Amino acid sequence: MQVAFSADERRVAEQPYYLASGDEVEVFQAAHRQRLPLMLKGPTGCGKTRLVEHMAARLGLQLITIACHEDITAADLVGRYLLHGGETVWVDGPLTRAVRRGAICYLDEVVEARADTTVVIHPLADHRRELNLERLNETLHAPDDFMLVVSYNPGYQSVLKDLKQSTRQRMVGIELGYPVAERELRILVRESGIDEARAMELVKLAHAIRKLDASMLPDVCSTRTLVSTARLMCEGLSARAAAMAAMLLPLCDDAEVVRGLREVVNTYLPQ
Amino acid sequence: MQVAFSADERRVAEQPYYLASGDEVEVFQAAHRQRLPLMLKGPTGCGKTRLVEHMAARLGLQLITIACHEDITAADLVGRYLLHGGETVWVDGPLTRAVRRGAICYLDEVVEARADTTVVIHPLADHRRELNLERLNETLHAPDDFMLVVSYNPGYQSVLKDLKQSTRQRMVGIELGYPVAERELRILVRESGIDEARAMELVKLAHAIRKLDASMLPDVCSTRTLVSTARLMCEGLSARAAAMAAMLLPLCDDAEVVRGLREVVNTYLPQ
Amino acid sequence: MQVAFSADERRVAEQPYYLASGDEVEVFQAAHRQRLPLMLKGPTGCGKTRLVEHMAARLGLQLITIACHEDITAADLVGRYLLHGGETVWVDGPLTRAVRRGAICYLDEVVEARADTTVVIHPLADHRRELNLERLNETLHAPDDFMLVVSYNPGYQSVLKDLKQSTRQRMVGIELGYPVAERELRILVRESGIDEARAMELVKLAHAIRKLDASMLPDVCSTRTLVSTARLMCEGLSARAAAMAAMLLPLCDDAEVVRGLREVVNTYLPQ
Amino acid sequence: MQVAFSADERRVAEQPYYLASGDEVEVFQAAHRQRLPLMLKGPTGCGKTRLVEHMAARLGLQLITIACHEDITAADLVGRYLLHGGETVWVDGPLTRAVRRGAICYLDEVVEARADTTVVIHPLADHRRELNLERLNETLHAPDDFMLVVSYNPGYQSVLKDLKQSTRQRMVGIELGYPVAERELRILVRESGIDEARAMELVKLAHAIRKLDASMLPDVCSTRTLVSTARLMCEGLSARAAAMAAMLLPLCDDAEVVRGLREVVNTYLPQ
Amino acid sequence: MQVAFSADERRVAEQPYYLASGDEVEVFQAAHRQRLPLMLKGPTGCGKTRLVEHMAARLGLQLITIACHEDITAADLVGRYLLHGGETVWVDGPLTRAVRRGAICYLDEVVEARADTTVVIHPLADHRRELNLERLNETLHAPDDFMLVVSYNPGYQSVLKDLKQSTRQRMVGIELGYPVAERELRILVRESGIDEARAMELVKLAHAIRKLDASMLPDVCSTRTLVSTARLMCEGLSARAAAMAAMLLPLCDDAEVVRGLREVVNTYLPQ
Amino acid sequence: MQVAFSADERRVAEQPYYLASGDEVEVFQAAHRQRLPLMLKGPTGCGKTRLVEHMAARLGLQLITIACHEDITAADLVGRYLLHGGETVWVDGPLTRAVRRGAICYLDEVVEARADTTVVIHPLADHRRELNLERLNETLHAPDDFMLVVSYNPGYQSVLKDLKQSTRQRMVGIELGYPVAERELRILVRESGIDEARAMELVKLAHAIRKLDASMLPDVCSTRTLVSTARLMCEGLSARAAAMAAMLLPLCDDAEVVRGLREVVNTYLPQ
Repeated sequence: MQVAFSADERRVAEQPYYLASGDEVEVFQAAHRQRLPLMLKGPTGCGKTRLVEHMAARLGLQLITIACHEDITAADLVGRYLLHGGETVWVDGPLTRAVRRGAICYLDEVVEARADTTVVIHPLADHRRELNLERLNETLHAPDDFMLVVSYNPGYQSVLKDLKQSTRQRMVGIELGYPVAERELRILVRESGIDEARAMELVKLAHAIRKLDASMLPDVCSTRTLVSTARLMCEGLSARAAAMAAMLLPLCDDAEVVRGLREVVNTYLPQ
Repeated sequence: MQVAFSADERRVAEQPYYLASGDEVEVFQAAHRQRLPLMLKGPTGCGKTRLVEHMAARLGLQLITIACHEDITAADLVGRYLLHGGETVWVDGPLTRAVRRGAICYLDEVVEARADTTVVIHPLADHRRELNLERLNETLHAPDDFMLVVSYNPGYQSVLKDLKQSTRQRMVGIELGYPVAERELRILVRESGIDEARAMELVKLAHAIRKLDASMLPDVCSTRTLVSTARLMCEGLSARAAAMAAMLLPLCDDAEVVRGLREVVNTYLPQ
Repeated sequence: MQVAFSADERRVAEQPYYLASGDEVEVFQAAHRQRLPLMLKGPTGCGKTRLVEHMAARLGLQLITIACHEDITAADLVGRYLLHGGETVWVDGPLTRAVRRGAICYLDEVVEARADTTVVIHPLADHRRELNLERLNETLHAPDDFMLVVSYNPGYQSVLKDLKQSTRQRMVGIELGYPVAERELRILVRESGIDEARAMELVKLAHAIRKLDASMLPDVCSTRTLVSTARLMCEGLSARAAAMAAMLLPLCDDAEVVRGLREVVNTYLPQ
Repeated sequence: MQVAFSADERRVAEQPYYLASGDEVEVFQAAHRQRLPLMLKGPTGCGKTRLVEHMAARLGLQLITIACHEDITAADLVGRYLLHGGETVWVDGPLTRAVRRGAICYLDEVVEARADTTVVIHPLADHRRELNLERLNETLHAPDDFMLVVSYNPGYQSVLKDLKQSTRQRMVGIELGYPVAERELRILVRESGIDEARAMELVKLAHAIRKLDASMLPDVCSTRTLVSTARLMCEGLSARAAAMAAMLLPLCDDAEVVRGLREVVNTYLPQ
Repeated sequence: MQVAFSADERRVAEQPYYLASGDEVEVFQAAHRQRLPLMLKGPTGCGKTRLVEHMAARLGLQLITIACHEDITAADLVGRYLLHGGETVWVDGPLTRAVRRGAICYLDEVVEARADTTVVIHPLADHRRELNLERLNETLHAPDDFMLVVSYNPGYQSVLKDLKQSTRQRMVGIELGYPVAERELRILVRESGIDEARAMELVKLAHAIRKLDASMLPDVCSTRTLVSTARLMCEGLSARAAAMAAMLLPLCDDAEVVRGLREVVNTYLPQ
Repeated sequence: MQVAFSADERRVAEQPYYLASGDEVEVFQAAHRQRLPLMLKGPTGCGKTRLVEHMAARLGLQLITIACHEDITAADLVGRYLLHGGETVWVDGPLTRAVRRGAICYLDEVVEARADTTVVIHPLADHRRELNLERLNETLHAPDDFMLVVSYNPGYQSVLKDLKQSTRQRMVGIELGYPVAERELRILVRESGIDEARAMELVKLAHAIRKLDASMLPDVCSTRTLVSTARLMCEGLSARAAAMAAMLLPLCDDAEVVRGLREVVNTYLPQ
């Protein structure tokens, strides 16, 4: 069976812009120095990936990202024998490459992966810091620079998909949320090229929506959707049309809820 | 295991007729210029595919369509090694071809696909615009013209099959519905060759049915079924027999409901 | 994994006897001329297959029948590479053969097939009339004579197994029921060689059973079971013994219901 | 994947003893002459298999038995390509062998088989009497002597495992029960060698147990367990010990029910 | 797919000590002489395996044990083709070996095996006494000495995992329980080397626990756990510590129940 | 299918520091001398693995650890044939290696493994002490030093995942909890290098949290999270920030619960 997954490997050359909202940079650094694995919690589009990219550049480490899903198995992480020209060749998986190189291995949405992946992580995530390559009859000892980072969105968790306490309690946690207004404004201007006045209108709208009754909405507007809205406005769409397309329609399918949100939009944005 | 799926690739030579009912053409163009992916929402047979064909021709881009279903995996989209004459040869999947050529890749009914497909989409659908070909040890950077478009029908969604917010909030949304009466009339005449008077009777019938109590019917009559009715009439069937065959019987199996609908038909169509 | 299925291919040489009970022949012909796919609805043993055989002969077309079940996949319909003498050879599936030859492809009990089959059907069932042979890197355009016909029994449908509206609304519908008394009598005489008097007794019995409370019986007696009863009578079984064996016992396992039915039998048939 | 199943093929040389309790022999013969398939219903150990063996000998036909279970697929019945010495060789399945030879093919407990087996049966079980060997590109027409017989136990059926009406209504039914007292007595004496007096005690006990409240017991004592009891008695066990071992303990695990049954045993059997 | 299972084959040279608690030895012998299969019922650790070992030695037969579990298929019992040095070689499964040699084949916890195993057992367990080796095109007739013995624990059965009546009623049953006090005492002394006084304390404790409310405990203490307790005491552990380790902690995880049991222990055992 | 798992093999050279909290060392030794398998129960991070490492060193035995998960099958434990350079070579699994060498085989979280693993364990865990290598046609008799140890966390068990009584009652049990305050203090100082005063504050905090209402928290803080907290403090984080990152966020996702816990933290730790 073939499983495709994205292992995004790159040394982040230029240090991405990141404005800390709390002590997340200090905790990240302390965990790295103590060789403790890290767990990032937070909603979609709040900057978890951005923080990892920023810290990888800051620590001068290569970053290997694995987007997890329900078909990801331990073998996908560790590696497997493949047939090449009639020869069986061992091919390291992304986790093994990260251990060999002393890189940051970032398992995005880790709870989506299959259960056997936690088995591979456990001996890497405690005092042993070992990766067992059973098939190669080899055990890798992770260099000091190697760091395991996982992310997940607590809002999506269900009883069926959750990290076991024996996994969680091996990790140090960082919780992220959406940025405060002034910081979100700066991000909008920087990422879309929109002017500050219109950006502020969007930020105010987003904060209004985020204050709505949680039971009414499946989620709230991420910073990412604000950036998309601003970019559509730069193409000449009206603020309301852009917010409809990039904020409301992606958020929700319920016609009545969309109608209610549209009124909020009309209150905050010019015609 | 072999999985068959339809990847309909073609450069739409002649620009298909499309009469916009709102700002969908502008939003589509703005999203393309800003390199943002697009999500089309709307009921069956309302013109989602037609819009994509129209825009592909207008933007001068090749269109690659993938009809999603529950056996579609990431490997089906990205590609795989196949055996040809004793040699293993890599064969690009339709998504990879779309990225290489800067085409529009249209994932029809995307929620039907397996969960691991979202993993492939995610890095293509944010600022990275990258497709990881893990097996080729290669990462493709999408050219500016490449555009990802997905469609789905909100009326069919269930708790089990839904797009995650982290997928949705990467996209710009367009919502389509059935056309207003005058526009639907023009479509009928054009697509079936029926005369305007009889076409108007069918449009009035469709609007009457669409106003019925939603709980009574599994769905409403799409524009497509109106066209089929008109085409059967051009073969000499009476209006009532044609509507029975092409509108009522496909819509619903419940004998009592069909009987009720037949009365509506008799009110609007001549014997 | 190997999947066996029956693809019954034959050009129906002699036009099978078929006495229309409504406008089904006209609708079938109109749909064929307009290149629209057809959906036959009706209970078991009412003549759906017979109608298709009749029309295939009448239109001078080859008929390829596929009995669907839950292990039928798109690859079973379209074709696959098989190993023959160390060589991989592409083998067309029955749907592909039907498209190449301009035949009628009849998917019997289509809802039983796996979900990915609808993907293959969709582009064949709208204006595109295309079959994508992804593995051959080839797209077949169906000739005008090609016609897709599907059947299903609305009484068997459940929430889990139903055709999606996006599939249904691509099709023209024909609904069949059991024939009226006089027509059923003629069928009995013709198919079993029984005399008219005894045939009429069976027809009257069947109509009596079909009028019973639907909640009491899992189904009603099909025309097919009447023919079987008549054939057993021709072998010397009494009418009552034949009806017990060919009508009652196949219909139902509940002892009490069978006892009730036996009284109905005794009322209509001589000892 | 390998699937093992038992296809018991033999020409029943000596005609097994069978004492008909109704018109089952006549119905079987009439169905065979009319080339109609047969469905045997009845509880475990009542003689279904014995009837088939008897009729096969009487009609001079070979009998091929397939005990169905949930891993039996259409390919197990029809045949498949196997690798022998580097060559792929087609190996007929038991159903195919039965068709080729004009034998009786007996599918024991047919509802246990997987759904795709009904697809193979359908064209064999109506007027077509054809077996499609898709993989061999060959269609077999069953000779007149070929006969399909299926059995099942209505008491075991559930909603999940049932024959579809479209399958059932292709068949002629025979219902069997446990033999009347005098007949069961003769079977006991013949099969175990026990004397008539003790055999009669066992028959009376069985009839008493079969009259108990059905909700108390998972099933009743079959004729087969009576034979086993008699055989243990011939080895010197007391009647009560033999009935406990061969009738009560196989029947039921509930200690309280067994205690109640033991009292019934003590009433009918000597110490 | 590879399935590992334990087929423990050995001719039991020395006849293991077994003190019958009822007529189980006589029933076993009678069933063997009459070539009837046997079903052993009883709780864990009560001596089912010991009885089979004892009888195998007594009858001078080889014993082949198969511990069943949910991945055991018919092929695991019967045999399969394996690749050895490029050649495909048939390898008999343990059931086939038992039939060829006229051994006792003991299926431990038979209900845990997959459903298709019953198919292999059925023709071996009735008058046919045949094993069909479909893949070898061979049918084995079991020699008179061959005997099929299955065991299961009625306390573990659920609706999902149960033997079908058609399987059960082919067998002769023996029910075992825990031994009476005096017999259990003798087993303890013999198996652990403990003195009689301390052994009697353990037996009294076990009988007290076995009388507790069944709804409070998941099971009761088997004779096996008494032996383990005695053996720990022989290593110098106090009676209470040994009972805690070998009787209470294996039995139950509920802290409150363990506390209650500990008080029972303190009542029966010295400090 | 490839299954990766971690089999951590090493002879523990230096005897790890372990301060017994009860008679666990004596029970472990007695079980080893009596060749009885051992079951360790206790919450996450309480020192189960540490005890096994300590005892392996003390007994001078090699330790082979297998972290179990739901894809671990019997073949993963026992071994399998693999292809190496065109040759099939048998490769011992970790359990087989442990038996051959007379090592301790430690199955961590054994209930997570697939059901067929218990089949391999059973004959190793009773008086037979045998490992059947069916594929090698070989049975290994475990040397006296071989010892099977399993662990599991009773708090995680569900009805679906539990050890069967027939498995449990083969084992001797040891139950571990979190260490008493003075002992936990010594561990903290030793493992993190923190000073005693600050370590005592953390221990007091942990004990306060462990006394909270169990229904409020998914679990309690393990000793492991205390060590992580102390290590972050050694990197300069404040006690409160460190406890937030290493104790609270890993423990729980519920914002309200975290807020409540933060107040507990503020009470016990300086600003």
